[in-house]
Amino acid sequence: MRCEVVAIGTELLLGIIVDSNSAWIGEQLALAGIDSYFQVKVGDNFARIEATIRQALERSDAVICCGGLGPTQDDITRDVIARIMGVKMRRDEAIAARIRKFFEARGRVMPENNLRQADIPVGAESIPQMPGTAAGLVCPVGDKVIYAVPGVPAEMREMVLGTVLPDLRRRAGQAAVIRSRVLRTWGLSESGLAEILATRIDELDRLGNPTLAFQASGIDGIKVRIVAKCNDEATAQRILDAEEALIRTLLGDAVFGIDEQSMEAVVLDLLRRKGLTLAVAETVTGGLLSARLSALDWAMETFRGGKVGARRGAEPAERLAVSAAAEVRSEFGADVGLVAVAPVPSEGYAPGAVLLGVDSQGNAKVERVMLTPDRHRMREFSVISLLNLLRRTLSA
Amino acid sequence: MRCEVVAIGTELLLGIIVDSNSAWIGEQLALAGIDSYFQVKVGDNFARIEATIRQALERSDAVICCGGLGPTQDDITRDVIARIMGVKMRRDEAIAARIRKFFEARGRVMPENNLRQADIPVGAESIPQMPGTAAGLVCPVGDKVIYAVPGVPAEMREMVLGTVLPDLRRRAGQAAVIRSRVLRTWGLSESGLAEILATRIDELDRLGNPTLAFQASGIDGIKVRIVAKCNDEATAQRILDAEEALIRTLLGDAVFGIDEQSMEAVVLDLLRRKGLTLAVAETVTGGLLSARLSALDWAMETFRGGKVGARRGAEPAERLAVSAAAEVRSEFGADVGLVAVAPVPSEGYAPGAVLLGVDSQGNAKVERVMLTPDRHRMREFSVISLLNLLRRTLSA
Repeated sequence: MRCEVVAIGTELLLGIIVDSNSAWIGEQLALAGIDSYFQVKVGDNFARIEATIRQALERSDAVICCGGLGPTQDDITRDVIARIMGVKMRRDEAIAARIRKFFEARGRVMPENNLRQADIPVGAESIPQMPGTAAGLVCPVGDKVIYAVPGVPAEMREMVLGTVLPDLRRRAGQAAVIRSRVLRTWGLSESGLAEILATRIDELDRLGNPTLAFQASGIDGIKVRIVAKCNDEATAQRILDAEEALIRTLLGDAVFGIDEQSMEAVVLDLLRRKGLTLAVAETVTGGLLSARLSALDWAMETFRGGKVGARRGAEPAERLAVSAAAEVRSEFGADVGLVAVAPVPSEGYAPGAVLLGVDSQGNAKVERVMLTPDRHRMREFSVISLLNLLRRTLSA
Repeated sequence: MRCEVVAIGTELLLGIIVDSNSAWIGEQLALAGIDSYFQVKVGDNFARIEATIRQALERSDAVICCGGLGPTQDDITRDVIARIMGVKMRRDEAIAARIRKFFEARGRVMPENNLRQADIPVGAESIPQMPGTAAGLVCPVGDKVIYAVPGVPAEMREMVLGTVLPDLRRRAGQAAVIRSRVLRTWGLSESGLAEILATRIDELDRLGNPTLAFQASGIDGIKVRIVAKCNDEATAQRILDAEEALIRTLLGDAVFGIDEQSMEAVVLDLLRRKGLTLAVAETVTGGLLSARLSALDWAMETFRGGKVGARRGAEPAERLAVSAAAEVRSEFGADVGLVAVAPVPSEGYAPGAVLLGVDSQGNAKVERVMLTPDRHRMREFSVISLLNLLRRTLSA
């Protein structure tokens, strides 16, 4: 089963908007075991959209068109698909009613041209998910199919997950369930991970299921993705659980979370479970650490606060990492204080050295990490390194 | 003159990397007056890359291939282009020497397969800009041309700006110079801007040069782009200067900067010129404001520091916006204090109300803004609104 993605909109070609929709759809297709060999961006031009979709239909079994479903004269995806299907357009009264209701619910007057969004090709079916005023479409062409979804990412995602992928799977005759889980790691290199997991990867190559893949993700660490393919949901989850347990045994505390869990979410969760509060001193990190923590702890019940300021005074870096962690802890009345300190050149550390200090209820410890001596990267990696130090301290 | 962009790499189709290179190249082409009707992503597969480039060459005058120039077996862009040119590969000793030097300068041993990057099609010329180990290529095919640039954004950009665009312009026989300038605005809606500039836009539609375009950019405000097309650099700059002056007169202090100037860069610059220092209290903004300011003022000479913490105590929001600005100013010994305060529901403000307080050397003022009552957006828009308030205060 092959599926192409066609992203429609002149603003994509002009670089006004970056087409991240195709990438997201590509990821979903890959996870569903469907091949996608080409993804094309084309402007709001009838002949060029038509040629692009026709070519995609020739070399693939299905085409997902993304964008061009709005109410303006520029939005011609519906008309192009009708031409390719060789059919006329019809006004769909059910869609028209939903569009009217959408405006009424917001107390707004509906411009008459919005009803263009209710004109669909004869023989096309509308996609039941419809969070906005654009209706998604499933359009059969012989034994192939064109899907049309809006360019608004949230609307597109709801329709792809709710209708397009299940329909593609049905067409592919896939009884199989494909499920994945991401184990998120920090502190090991990609080659380090590969070495530790080498024997298991060889075994899985022979078994064929589940599969493992690595994905280096900068300050989000390296992700290990487990993909399981089986006949039912329960078996898929059992396989993922077993593989996760095995990999956790092999990688130890390098695994900090799963799927969408961020390092700060894990740390805040550990603090909450232990009934501890946190304060941070930000010299190297300049506010970035507070911004991440406060985004998840809006009421600031666990993360009590942060103090941003340059390193002043003549205290040596290593002693400062201890004293600043203790001071910020006491200033905010928190149980744990955290700080990153960058030595000045005269202190004789190698370039890129950063001292991480943590004070947990009076127990202080300092760790030295070596980071890229580039200011922006040093800030960002200091934030993650500090959170990771705290995670290991709390888990110990 | 038409130019297509082909982005090469299986990781782009799988959504592991979002292809933002094509969007950037598309923007550059548009600014240079070169049409780009299609942009295609294709995986690391010889036959499919070949078919894609051949089709692009048929329907356009030039093709920019992005990616697939690395040292591994997956990187086959060079070989595919040689096939299309109908030529063999040759080892380019000048490129080989530069690659060796690149490793030597970093004290690293060069893996032998890195020299694959010095094998180029006979008849291709290498692009002089070469910040990494990948050589860009200019490959003539009849009276058309294929450019190959690496997928690493910084390397790609240097080559496109330094060689590809000038070469395309020369081929297009463009004696014309196309230059643009972006005026960055905050505080007006897109329709508000259009209304104020309506007469001037009508005039420019008749004159044809320069042109104006709007681009809504979220928390970066709305950008007004002036594009001038003329015979020489000096005339282009004169036209841009004149148009900028005219638009500034019409829009007043809604214009906060030009081109890549951020709001915080403008504010720090104003503070420096006045010899003033700044401190911020972050309740609503949670550290985001400090992070932005410290990123540009690493030594923290103008931005003295910030304090992140929840709003505590029972002081009414409006009074707190005054007292907190004064307190943080005194705590950090700064001339100016800045704070955003979100009222609690019992205070009776409409949802989305935020109070902005500024204290400049004892002169306090409070402004109320209405923001989207969504936490993440409220944080981000509070940061920009605070910086904008300070900008207007300092410019007054």
